[in-house]
Amino acid sequence: MPSYKAPLRDMRFVLEQVADLERLRALPGCEEVTTELVDPIMEEAAKLCEEVLLPLNRSGDEEGCHYENGVVRTPAGFRDAYRMLREGGWPALHCDPEYGGQGLPRTVSLLFEEMMCSANLSFGMYPGLSHGAYTALHAFGSEALKALYLPRLVSGEWTGTMCLTEPHCGTDLGLIRTKAVPEGDGSYRITGSKIFISAGEHDLAENIVHLVLAKLPDAPPGVKGISLFLVPKFLPDGQGQPGARNGVSCASIEHKMGIKASATCAMNFDEATGWLVGAPHKGLRAMFAMMNEERLAVGIQGLGLAEISYQNAAAYAKDRLQGRALGGTRYPEKPADPIIVHPDVRRMLLTMRASIEGCRALGLLTALEQDVATRSTDPATRQEAEDYVALLTPVVKALFTDLGSEAANLGMQVLGGHGYIREWGMEQYVRDARIAQIYEGTNGIQALDLVGRKLPAHAGRYLRRFFHPVLDYIESRGEDEAMAEFILPLSKAFGRLQQCTAEVARRGFADPFEAGAAATDYLRLFGLTALGHVWARMAEASLRGLEGGDADFHKAKLATARFFFARILPQTGALSAAILAGGETLRAMEDAAF
Amino acid sequence: MPSYKAPLRDMRFVLEQVADLERLRALPGCEEVTTELVDPIMEEAAKLCEEVLLPLNRSGDEEGCHYENGVVRTPAGFRDAYRMLREGGWPALHCDPEYGGQGLPRTVSLLFEEMMCSANLSFGMYPGLSHGAYTALHAFGSEALKALYLPRLVSGEWTGTMCLTEPHCGTDLGLIRTKAVPEGDGSYRITGSKIFISAGEHDLAENIVHLVLAKLPDAPPGVKGISLFLVPKFLPDGQGQPGARNGVSCASIEHKMGIKASATCAMNFDEATGWLVGAPHKGLRAMFAMMNEERLAVGIQGLGLAEISYQNAAAYAKDRLQGRALGGTRYPEKPADPIIVHPDVRRMLLTMRASIEGCRALGLLTALEQDVATRSTDPATRQEAEDYVALLTPVVKALFTDLGSEAANLGMQVLGGHGYIREWGMEQYVRDARIAQIYEGTNGIQALDLVGRKLPAHAGRYLRRFFHPVLDYIESRGEDEAMAEFILPLSKAFGRLQQCTAEVARRGFADPFEAGAAATDYLRLFGLTALGHVWARMAEASLRGLEGGDADFHKAKLATARFFFARILPQTGALSAAILAGGETLRAMEDAAF
Repeated sequence: MPSYKAPLRDMRFVLEQVADLERLRALPGCEEVTTELVDPIMEEAAKLCEEVLLPLNRSGDEEGCHYENGVVRTPAGFRDAYRMLREGGWPALHCDPEYGGQGLPRTVSLLFEEMMCSANLSFGMYPGLSHGAYTALHAFGSEALKALYLPRLVSGEWTGTMCLTEPHCGTDLGLIRTKAVPEGDGSYRITGSKIFISAGEHDLAENIVHLVLAKLPDAPPGVKGISLFLVPKFLPDGQGQPGARNGVSCASIEHKMGIKASATCAMNFDEATGWLVGAPHKGLRAMFAMMNEERLAVGIQGLGLAEISYQNAAAYAKDRLQGRALGGTRYPEKPADPIIVHPDVRRMLLTMRASIEGCRALGLLTALEQDVATRSTDPATRQEAEDYVALLTPVVKALFTDLGSEAANLGMQVLGGHGYIREWGMEQYVRDARIAQIYEGTNGIQALDLVGRKLPAHAGRYLRRFFHPVLDYIESRGEDEAMAEFILPLSKAFGRLQQCTAEVARRGFADPFEAGAAATDYLRLFGLTALGHVWARMAEASLRGLEGGDADFHKAKLATARFFFARILPQTGALSAAILAGGETLRAMEDAAF
Repeated sequence: MPSYKAPLRDMRFVLEQVADLERLRALPGCEEVTTELVDPIMEEAAKLCEEVLLPLNRSGDEEGCHYENGVVRTPAGFRDAYRMLREGGWPALHCDPEYGGQGLPRTVSLLFEEMMCSANLSFGMYPGLSHGAYTALHAFGSEALKALYLPRLVSGEWTGTMCLTEPHCGTDLGLIRTKAVPEGDGSYRITGSKIFISAGEHDLAENIVHLVLAKLPDAPPGVKGISLFLVPKFLPDGQGQPGARNGVSCASIEHKMGIKASATCAMNFDEATGWLVGAPHKGLRAMFAMMNEERLAVGIQGLGLAEISYQNAAAYAKDRLQGRALGGTRYPEKPADPIIVHPDVRRMLLTMRASIEGCRALGLLTALEQDVATRSTDPATRQEAEDYVALLTPVVKALFTDLGSEAANLGMQVLGGHGYIREWGMEQYVRDARIAQIYEGTNGIQALDLVGRKLPAHAGRYLRRFFHPVLDYIESRGEDEAMAEFILPLSKAFGRLQQCTAEVARRGFADPFEAGAAATDYLRLFGLTALGHVWARMAEASLRGLEGGDADFHKAKLATARFFFARILPQTGALSAAILAGGETLRAMEDAAF
């Protein structure tokens, strides 16, 4: 049975040393966000995740969800755990105080999100989806809808969903067929079928609030004709309590590779009553508004699973006796050395660590910019932060989830045959992590978003929000001898990124196929360089920290940093070679020859 | 439900154009191996795999094996399928005619092995394990044991197992505790517990022949004290029929991530009667004798799963309509373009193809050398072939299974959310492929075998069996303009391999930790370069073939080759950078800090 301890020490390090807490505290509503405020919250969060959610992770995977006649039951224990989540006020953590939220910045709540993903990703998806619905409704709902629905979503009494995908279309939402017919009283009749709806039906909450993409009768074709509707499972009565059952039902649940305790539902809307959220035909805009937040959340799923996989792989490697160290016995008092002595086992664990700690820092930086973008009173500052978030969002989503899957696989590999059997729990992380590379826009779509939308936007303005600070950082440390071992490889990777960026932009402008052909490799190149930047900053902080009271922590941080720069970052060389090779070899094969 | 057509056209291409059939036919017993002989056999093999084994793959995964009171039942349909396998003589394909085998070379039977892995890996493991037992017994058993057991293994009436792993040891077999006590009548009493025993118990055959590693009372400590014993489930009676039940039983079966229809058993030996195979204390030698064959077989598992995943991903990509091509509509008659038009989808499919076709060729070349090593009448020729096989075996096992898992994941990614749900079958390939990176020696162990044993062996003699032909090939094509696009990148990769080989050898000689630190990256560098060599040879054959009657096949082959050289082989640059960075960053972290 896997164990888990929330990595509070590292979270505090990132919060204090990488995220700019001064900048955060300058934001309205964040004035009191200090580590003194955050630490006890995180300790309580850790307790919930370690003691309540973790023990339900494997049992939830074994049992899965049950479907019968439109009713979905979650696995044993989930209802109690959800009640505790609600009673602790956790769904409200970073919601608007106007609707009952606690108003904490995302920079803080993201740490809780990571813990929940480590302890029990399937469970975490129920409040996670609610949060997505909350965000879209908060940004685009009418005052009446907000007043009625937001307090219930914030308290967790009700949960939410996002209903986008249909059997014949996922990525290309312009093809959706679900229809919305105005009733004349401000409401609409929604009819159609949706699939892959996480938390579409379950037994955790009194009501479920579906946000549904549908087309109005006068909708223009394609993505410009999509509107967003709120469709509750039970229509609220005069007191705002769940009343009559609405025309929405769950037709079946999917049998999946992983996240088995998360109900993935096929939903039928049969003249269901709904209300428009945002302007007619502008539904996609509302969806995109919440996507930056949701895609960061999905990235964090990769991180969370990598973290728990690492913890258990490292524990196993220190415990499992097998063979002797290559250079001669290291633990003569034991019948064999623990496998942690073997360089290849250390390579696997360090690869996981370098990903995890790098992603945690980059994720928190991105959340900080989200907070600035939503809270700053200065429009120019908001714009800059929005640009940064727009640019980094596809990188965070795809990079973190790819690295998360790789890490979960490495963690499993450390355990050998024991990793492959269900008993040890490591294989579940591999299965659970895999979905994060697919949903909320596949990682290929993230890469296209980066090269196709974000790179060319506003003549490269987004790009400058990242390039300039990195360049400034490299230049400002150019004379620092202690930092040279980090700055030199960072500078090399950054040079490759600059060259490839120019080249992808140039070729992509002439031929969009070329941009697409480079996209996935380019996103990884970008992501590794961004990790290089945060790793250099963390190394710098730990060089200072070596003289303080927590030298062991900082020594380990520096060892991981050195591993990252020596053994991981050189991958940027191969990536840039593949990018610069261009798309011709992708084009040459006839479609029919595949 | 996935479909599968055995890739007979490509198999014939590799057999004719890459494997040296003239060389094969010069071997005793192979004089008549022509494509005219092979083609009908492969067509029959394809029929069995496509029509009998494939339909049982998903049902077998869903149902799994059943355990009750020591009895294991395989999933519905497996007994009938096994009967058909037996009746068709398939287990005998490349077995010794003296014991009822058909005597075909491995170069041919490997193609059948690939098909079986594509169609139903779990099923294929039952005859696969038998084959391992057959090989060890054939090489080291006494005449009496061979006469009694081999004909039943060859016919498939009985199946075999390899019992190595114990709960506390897998990689380090020196730690095993199973004991063998001589009875004085030539038999032994075997007592101990084994785990992870594939096909240890099942209902497909009348008897099961376990080959068991155990220690004699006077055994020296460690791996030099291990002996190999044959322990049948039922002791043969005077007529060689299954008689009294022996003291061996199945205590439980494992619940695993994948290969669920393959029974992975915990076996108890309780004073079971057994007979020594080979010399006392030389059991490991007997195990290693069959490992070259078995590790190639496991490599082929990766290839087989990659192939079926590719076929279904490609079919989906040509069928699924979603969005429009980046450069403008390509299929105006359809509501959207099939996703095959998207460069990133093509990148995924071409990556799979480049792996598959490259591995098929490299695998067949290795099998050819195995045939030469076992059949040639010239000792020097045998030795050269043995050297080559010894060198390539860890590469084939680890490279093919790593690429197999990567391919299965790419195939799943092509299907997006549909890839993640069980219905489509793609996620099963990911789960099934994962074990091949672990069993038969983890891929980390393969890498250590390569750098620690094979590289330094006989002052680099093994290495020369690969380096010299590649170097000769590059030099002989140096003036060929048509080949320059393939030879230049191959030459670059080969240069990196040469440099890293020298460096790893030098550092590893001074400090074995350094060799271990480079091992996994070095194996991948070696493997990609080896693929580069076969890809250049295939490209050359297809350049010639363009003028023949099957131009479409050769055009696709060349397109895939060009993709491999432009987009995959540059990874050798990053690998060599990581290798040359050395092991210091792997060493620095304290064990306790992990």
